[in-house]
Amino acid sequence: MPNPTAAMLVIGDEILSGRTRDSNMHHLAKALTEHGIDLKEARVVSDHAASIVAAVKALSAAHDHVFTSGGIGPTHDDITADCIAEAFGAHIDVREDARALLAAHYQRTGMEMNAARLRMARIPDGATLIDNPVSTAPGFTIGNVHVMAGVPAVFEAMVASVLPTLTGGAPLISETLRVDRPEGEIAGPLGDVAGRYADLSIGCYPFIRDGRPGANVVIRGTEGDRVKAALNDLVTAFAP
Amino acid sequence: MPNPTAAMLVIGDEILSGRTRDSNMHHLAKALTEHGIDLKEARVVSDHAASIVAAVKALSAAHDHVFTSGGIGPTHDDITADCIAEAFGAHIDVREDARALLAAHYQRTGMEMNAARLRMARIPDGATLIDNPVSTAPGFTIGNVHVMAGVPAVFEAMVASVLPTLTGGAPLISETLRVDRPEGEIAGPLGDVAGRYADLSIGCYPFIRDGRPGANVVIRGTEGDRVKAALNDLVTAFAP
Repeated sequence: MPNPTAAMLVIGDEILSGRTRDSNMHHLAKALTEHGIDLKEARVVSDHAASIVAAVKALSAAHDHVFTSGGIGPTHDDITADCIAEAFGAHIDVREDARALLAAHYQRTGMEMNAARLRMARIPDGATLIDNPVSTAPGFTIGNVHVMAGVPAVFEAMVASVLPTLTGGAPLISETLRVDRPEGEIAGPLGDVAGRYADLSIGCYPFIRDGRPGANVVIRGTEGDRVKAALNDLVTAFAP
Repeated sequence: MPNPTAAMLVIGDEILSGRTRDSNMHHLAKALTEHGIDLKEARVVSDHAASIVAAVKALSAAHDHVFTSGGIGPTHDDITADCIAEAFGAHIDVREDARALLAAHYQRTGMEMNAARLRMARIPDGATLIDNPVSTAPGFTIGNVHVMAGVPAVFEAMVASVLPTLTGGAPLISETLRVDRPEGEIAGPLGDVAGRYADLSIGCYPFIRDGRPGANVVIRGTEGDRVKAALNDLVTAFAP
């Protein structure tokens, strides 16, 4: 059975303006690969309601899971929860379970529960809360969409909360063969071996290090024996 | 007149598997912002022809410019040029101008021009070459799509080659106000000020540093006076 598929949606003007470098995509990609869920696509959109709604609808229809990051805080530009509700045609308002979590947190920490903070308790009807051990304000899952915060420490904690609840497939096994030659020299034999292992994904990732070209050849698959066999064939094929 | 809009398409399994952390998106986002082109959307897709073709068509139709990175090397998994040609219904084959560039480069460096390397001279009819001062193999522009390499040093050199040829708008001016208080405390007055400056983009980006919450409030616009005025209003609004 093929692994479940996933897409990621990063929401935030600050990524697209180059102000902030996103790190959540890389974190999620690694976590999903280990869990046996194949990340097929990622998108970054700005804090613009129509763009968010359209992306959620498209990705939710095309994949088993969608993971979003960003836009669920207390400020005026945090519009993700409302957009997700709109995408699902779900009613959204302050929900008692989320409000109670926040109220207890603010009471414990001596902070004031104001109107802005109450916005973080806006959860669509039918959604399940995602635990946030870092700063309490929860994420949520509705349908196949998992809605999480943009702050990396909180995003990572929410991924750790939600992933164990999802059925994974076979974790991807990968082997990397570093070749200190230009990829143009190994491309011929590499293509031959890749053609013989159509069940594996064999990629070639060139680099320039200290001014010299090289390449990492990465073999990925769910069956360890096949991955090893392809690795051995490549070593032989690349021998001078 | 509003600035031209752009989208980026990152192509490569290695990003989605978490093996490689993309840095080209962040580089392009900063370069476009400085040039007065608004990056509205970014997508990452795998080395899968149908996914690449569909993304190129969608982004090319929706934006003034599309910038792609990855998949134009000599190996079997480098399928970007053929996918771009397909998206535009253009014929693609080894083109003499690109072949001559590569032949001269390999002669100069004593490397062999083999079948794999010749693939890098596959350029769609009607495309303009993008200069690659790092490793010669060119990118290309067809229609509103600029096709560039994935290796960061080469990608960045190609961006530097192509950007001066594109008409930019007003560069975005931005001011950042760092507030060492939880964003829930400033969200109310922040929302009021943002409402009075609908011509600006005012975003709030929370962080946790040394265990303490804070936020960067970023004001962006093309008119420096308005950005300054909003900054002053925020300082006043946040005063204890």
